[in-house]
Amino acid sequence: MSVTAPQGFVAAGVAAGLKSTGRPDVAVVVNRGPLKVGAAVFTSNRAKANPVIWSQQVIRDGTVEAIVLNAGGANCFTGAFGFQTTHETAERAAELLAVSAGDILVCSTGLIGSGDEVFRAKVLAGTEQAIAQLSAEGAEAASEAIMTTDSRPKRVVAAGDAWTIGGMAKGAGMLAPGLATMLVVLTTDAVLTPEEADAHLRHATRVSFDRLDSDGCMSTNDQVSLLVSGASGVTPDPDEFRTALTEACIALAEQLQADAEGASHDIRIVVENAASEDDAVVVGRSVARNNLFKAAIFGNDPNWGRVLAAIGTTDAAFDPYDVDVWMNGVRVCTAGGPDRPREEVDLTPRATHVLIDLKAGDASAIILTNDLTHDYVHENSAYSS
Amino acid sequence: MSVTAPQGFVAAGVAAGLKSTGRPDVAVVVNRGPLKVGAAVFTSNRAKANPVIWSQQVIRDGTVEAIVLNAGGANCFTGAFGFQTTHETAERAAELLAVSAGDILVCSTGLIGSGDEVFRAKVLAGTEQAIAQLSAEGAEAASEAIMTTDSRPKRVVAAGDAWTIGGMAKGAGMLAPGLATMLVVLTTDAVLTPEEADAHLRHATRVSFDRLDSDGCMSTNDQVSLLVSGASGVTPDPDEFRTALTEACIALAEQLQADAEGASHDIRIVVENAASEDDAVVVGRSVARNNLFKAAIFGNDPNWGRVLAAIGTTDAAFDPYDVDVWMNGVRVCTAGGPDRPREEVDLTPRATHVLIDLKAGDASAIILTNDLTHDYVHENSAYSS
Repeated sequence: MSVTAPQGFVAAGVAAGLKSTGRPDVAVVVNRGPLKVGAAVFTSNRAKANPVIWSQQVIRDGTVEAIVLNAGGANCFTGAFGFQTTHETAERAAELLAVSAGDILVCSTGLIGSGDEVFRAKVLAGTEQAIAQLSAEGAEAASEAIMTTDSRPKRVVAAGDAWTIGGMAKGAGMLAPGLATMLVVLTTDAVLTPEEADAHLRHATRVSFDRLDSDGCMSTNDQVSLLVSGASGVTPDPDEFRTALTEACIALAEQLQADAEGASHDIRIVVENAASEDDAVVVGRSVARNNLFKAAIFGNDPNWGRVLAAIGTTDAAFDPYDVDVWMNGVRVCTAGGPDRPREEVDLTPRATHVLIDLKAGDASAIILTNDLTHDYVHENSAYSS
Repeated sequence: MSVTAPQGFVAAGVAAGLKSTGRPDVAVVVNRGPLKVGAAVFTSNRAKANPVIWSQQVIRDGTVEAIVLNAGGANCFTGAFGFQTTHETAERAAELLAVSAGDILVCSTGLIGSGDEVFRAKVLAGTEQAIAQLSAEGAEAASEAIMTTDSRPKRVVAAGDAWTIGGMAKGAGMLAPGLATMLVVLTTDAVLTPEEADAHLRHATRVSFDRLDSDGCMSTNDQVSLLVSGASGVTPDPDEFRTALTEACIALAEQLQADAEGASHDIRIVVENAASEDDAVVVGRSVARNNLFKAAIFGNDPNWGRVLAAIGTTDAAFDPYDVDVWMNGVRVCTAGGPDRPREEVDLTPRATHVLIDLKAGDASAIILTNDLTHDYVHENSAYSS
């Protein structure tokens, strides 16, 4: 169900020939209302794809009727022609749905620099075809249509007090969001104003997708959208809704991590006792982006020296010679020296836990990352993506 | 010859049993004078090895008698015992050379966290043994003794106007300097004051080792030292000396790049027409640290979209939609869109050239990096280093 689990939404996913495999590649999600509230956050990469540039305008008034998504081409760095493709996609959807093109979000994913006449024709045809097939049962196909190197679709449903949140996501590489990440569509039938939707979404993405750093590479096409139908007629308790939305985003972020390209370990880096949450994030991210650390985890090697060498490059407040590092429950480093023997650490499970105690305050953060593997190198060198 | 090419220097390299292979692992370089001038730059990583902490004190007065270097153990995060090991190493060398321990630089390289009683005993014995074998012919053995995962020693000799510069270096991984990098010893018989030596060395390292970013991982043990004997009796032209020292450092940096762990491409990223040199460096480094770009080059894929996605994460001054990207002489991207077909780019040679024209000013910088390969993952996951 995912995005159609809340009342007031229909969806579809169709094969428009953008993927050479013939798999579904265009998805549409439509909000039937009564509310047509939308919020979205976008990649902070200055190199932005045309659909991002378009959607940033659409979201300004907080009104969204529908979202059109395609895989098989990022429509990024495709010039004026590419922007026109996005514009025409919104126009075509608006015409068929009898709404304004200015209320249609567009997302694309695939190879940067691809977006020619053939691409445009296929996206437009796919949009028409998907809109003709819209239904409450279309969520599954929609979540499959946005997949690129993903090996499986990512979906979530969270039930609140007489309201529901649904969501779908795609992403397996170039997975290191700045402000948002990847393509994610969230829906709810709770009653929210545009301002509430925006605030809840920003909070939820900040502590979920923004804490996922699989490979240090920030995408040009990231977009997380929340569509609000209000069809339940229920105004949720703000804290309860925010918590449910955050949990839904974390669940999707963990699905993205678990399906990261070539990864053999899902690494949860917990930074504790930092002077600030920002410090905790900076420290965790420095480890998540350290190729030597990531390669060591692939080799089941609890090489804590690489953790300290990574965090020493940050300007976070802590004494490098008074930091504790735990790996899978074993304290391998304390007070500037080795602690338990590295042989005690079992890194064979996929789930890997690194705890860094900075002893500098009471803030904390969790960063999710993956290891650096032969399969990652293979997937990202063997063909363009 | 390398470090003993200038007059006034002797060196030695011996096997002290620190390397399991039985290869040489302790080196000593001694300045016979008449000047005993020294300058050094160190890693900017806050996680610093004990020899770095020690040597930062030694260099304060600009006087250096000798430098002791070992491979087979980084003596980093080894606590008070480890610092005492470095101190004792300097004391032992000072005693045998009849000089002050406060004028002995110490460098170590190897696994972080290793530096126990056995390590100390071997380093001290190796220091004694090396000092007993000092000679003008010892430079070759010294350059071999500091190797870790290096497949070959790195040496340079530059002849000036009646003065000479010599140098040796080691480094193959954790190769992304902050202020200096790796272990490098430079020698000269030119006449220089401590202030001149320091200024020349800082200039030379800033545009050589500091522009090398093989794997984004900054070491805890980096140290570049310049020992000045003045034995030629010649005071060099400052510009001429600075140029020669810079060229010598670039030659060593290129040798380090060419021997980077597992690399199959030496990538020279030239950033042109930047608003400032800092901007050019930031832009070049963002590409050098992008795993997707590096994996693409390994796969001989001129994936310029990954270049733009990387530079878009920086705050350098440029318009992302008006940047030209050239790969091995072919302009693959211009004005926010594709240019020449990617098929025209031949990435099979090891030497790879990426030119990024920011069209934002007249500053430029060159960053040296390597690709991300299966061999890199293998070398850094199969065993601790």
